[in-house]
Amino acid sequence: MGANRRMLRLGAFLIAPGYHVASWRHPTAHADGGTDFAHYRDLVRTAERGKFDMVFLSDGLGIRTPYRDEEELSRWGRFAQFEPLSLLSALAVSTDRIGLAATASTSYNEPFHLARQFASLDFLSGGRAGWNVVTSVTDAEARNFNRDTQLDHETRYHRAREFMDVVTGLWDSWEDDAFLYDKESGRFFDPAKLHILHHKGEHFSVRGPLNVARPPQGYPVLVQAGASPDGQDFAAQWAEVVFTANQRLDQSQAFYRGMKEQVAAHGRDAEQIKIMPGVFPVIGRTRAEAEDKYAVLQELVDPVVGLGLLTQLLGDVDISGYPLDGPLPELPATEGCTSRQQLVWDKARREGLTIKELYRSVSGGRGHRIIIGTPGDVADELEEWFTAGGADGFNVMPPVLPDGLDDFVDLVIPELQRRQLFRTEYEGGTLRENLGLDRPAHRAASSAPAGH
Amino acid sequence: MGANRRMLRLGAFLIAPGYHVASWRHPTAHADGGTDFAHYRDLVRTAERGKFDMVFLSDGLGIRTPYRDEEELSRWGRFAQFEPLSLLSALAVSTDRIGLAATASTSYNEPFHLARQFASLDFLSGGRAGWNVVTSVTDAEARNFNRDTQLDHETRYHRAREFMDVVTGLWDSWEDDAFLYDKESGRFFDPAKLHILHHKGEHFSVRGPLNVARPPQGYPVLVQAGASPDGQDFAAQWAEVVFTANQRLDQSQAFYRGMKEQVAAHGRDAEQIKIMPGVFPVIGRTRAEAEDKYAVLQELVDPVVGLGLLTQLLGDVDISGYPLDGPLPELPATEGCTSRQQLVWDKARREGLTIKELYRSVSGGRGHRIIIGTPGDVADELEEWFTAGGADGFNVMPPVLPDGLDDFVDLVIPELQRRQLFRTEYEGGTLRENLGLDRPAHRAASSAPAGH
Repeated sequence: MGANRRMLRLGAFLIAPGYHVASWRHPTAHADGGTDFAHYRDLVRTAERGKFDMVFLSDGLGIRTPYRDEEELSRWGRFAQFEPLSLLSALAVSTDRIGLAATASTSYNEPFHLARQFASLDFLSGGRAGWNVVTSVTDAEARNFNRDTQLDHETRYHRAREFMDVVTGLWDSWEDDAFLYDKESGRFFDPAKLHILHHKGEHFSVRGPLNVARPPQGYPVLVQAGASPDGQDFAAQWAEVVFTANQRLDQSQAFYRGMKEQVAAHGRDAEQIKIMPGVFPVIGRTRAEAEDKYAVLQELVDPVVGLGLLTQLLGDVDISGYPLDGPLPELPATEGCTSRQQLVWDKARREGLTIKELYRSVSGGRGHRIIIGTPGDVADELEEWFTAGGADGFNVMPPVLPDGLDDFVDLVIPELQRRQLFRTEYEGGTLRENLGLDRPAHRAASSAPAGH
Repeated sequence: MGANRRMLRLGAFLIAPGYHVASWRHPTAHADGGTDFAHYRDLVRTAERGKFDMVFLSDGLGIRTPYRDEEELSRWGRFAQFEPLSLLSALAVSTDRIGLAATASTSYNEPFHLARQFASLDFLSGGRAGWNVVTSVTDAEARNFNRDTQLDHETRYHRAREFMDVVTGLWDSWEDDAFLYDKESGRFFDPAKLHILHHKGEHFSVRGPLNVARPPQGYPVLVQAGASPDGQDFAAQWAEVVFTANQRLDQSQAFYRGMKEQVAAHGRDAEQIKIMPGVFPVIGRTRAEAEDKYAVLQELVDPVVGLGLLTQLLGDVDISGYPLDGPLPELPATEGCTSRQQLVWDKARREGLTIKELYRSVSGGRGHRIIIGTPGDVADELEEWFTAGGADGFNVMPPVLPDGLDDFVDLVIPELQRRQLFRTEYEGGTLRENLGLDRPAHRAASSAPAGH
């Protein structure tokens, strides 16, 4: 295997008991896995055995699914989940090499808290922390944080940008070699290597310094998944990994090219951002077996859940008044994920789907690319996107856990390794080293302004 | 050992590399232990070997020591510490029986976040979480959270009370047996057992429900350490463990009696609150050895640190203009820990100490009771306070870690066990069970109003 050969990157998207909306009803699913540490520990160790770059935990600050009453809500699953940073802290000391990334919101957190938590995770894991920066897009979350509705899109991103200035400034409170621990002289640190932030901005006033040393990775790996123009521009400035949802190669190629160009326009090296579309793989020894597996899951989708899921993907627009066997109506613009909404609408129109057909079609991948087939089929499709400039890697969303992850690690990973597309051993000790990302220099070391 | 014999409770106050302000300069100290997980893991396993009820992590949301410039600050230690809940999450899966309590502030957190984090810690640890509720008392912390000065005392406690209503309401979002995981019927939970909070108050508006199941302990064990009248009243309503700082038995007896009376006045069982004064033990095989150990530490106190520490204990009052060999001046009232300030002032007057003598006297115990002697001496003093109605147990603050904790576990614990004052094996699986605290019923199970 050539040392300089370009290798694809893999993330494992883990949410107990699987990404498919009906996964918890599957006979093999650990329906109560959401607060079962052993379940998550075993999943992450499986991903580590497969040499995944990282595992990834999504998050919502409340129950984001739409429902009219408790009875409707009870058809959904997955309301009893660990808070992700608590879980990753525990996983950090239960694993050795795999990266650990979690979602956290810039709209409902204070930068001082998040800077400390991610710095702590980076120390606990020896430099394996990643942060998926989100601005949160539901009113349900706003209502748990003293608001009736979410902040508007522009304000969210404005706050997010200032948030990044503050957290990176806090991570740079101390230079890497600031701490002397000099017992003789009584100098705990070198005073010239302390940098007090003194931030005063529109959304935040944060003096600093952070009471944690600079993280092993400098900053945790910064991940972003917003697909709106604001989200893409934010990613181009800050993100090192981008999770995307694209159904077709040409879309993904256009996104890939566009993002790399935007990154370069921000003065950054385009190699320093890794584009990782989501894939929802249903793997069988034969194609028929894979199709059967998928059909079993689709049969388990409750109509209440399917319709609610579609409503959510459309940005909380109420479509309950329209006939299930008719087409999707024209929809108003919302403050939510408008680009995600467009994706679903495009699919409905392109394939001429009824509302019911549409909600079933998105119950599995939820807007992400679905691959159903043999290990060779899955490897073929990943290889095609990877070599054709559609992806630097993939965020793998197993339909049901642990089986879907076991299948990927035991069947697809060896095929990718055989094709020399994926590592057989971790290259480095930190997530940055494994992803091929530079360690950010302390801001005192360069004359560049704050940010990249 | 009689099953009903009253046993004392022990907490281990852990901050790397020790409670003494100069601990990091001690030859045996792990000066860089603050972000060294193995250091903390070994400490907690030692405490667990000693059958401690719990370990306890204090916290500050910034650097709370007073300093005029970076040079002064560099004489202090301990600025590079894990965020406590991240650390406890990792320790939860590295231990089996010991309780895990951390400080978190009601003034600079959102209840939804803390409710989730402590619920997650309780699940990760199998019911061993404890929360030391603080309102935070320094302007240094306020400046990291969009303020120039801290909230006034009354507002802090007003917010804290509402905070407790919200977090306990969020922990009661789901009844204990709400989750059905019924794959056949498609019912994830029983809709009758979901309770949406709909809180709208002066400080918080939180709809709920929490997206974590009810914690194994119902609520984590609630700890409180505020000694002001507001703090004591808050403790009487909410706390199950109270950390106090008392130098003399008569003071501690008065505090103990008063607190139990206040608890009863709130309609609670006085047995359901455990009063645990802090003790700072310096242990030697002989008294002379113990005295020598203490003298070595006292010699390491930097004058800048000693004076700054005294300033902090006095509530950030500037005493830098007064001669070190003169008495403490009359001091103005502050918005900080006025009761702690009074304690220090009483000590100075009672013992006729100069400022310098005073700061040296508080550098070790920092207002807490100092016991210097043999294991038998330490056991004698603990036994006296315990049997004379001055304490239900103690929060042990080892001067230097790991040695001070090793000494206590290897030398004092066996002596306490020999006297049948302390357990030889954990009684239960949860922190509540070990402390002899009731598991709080879900609020739907009683007609009592919110709170205890």
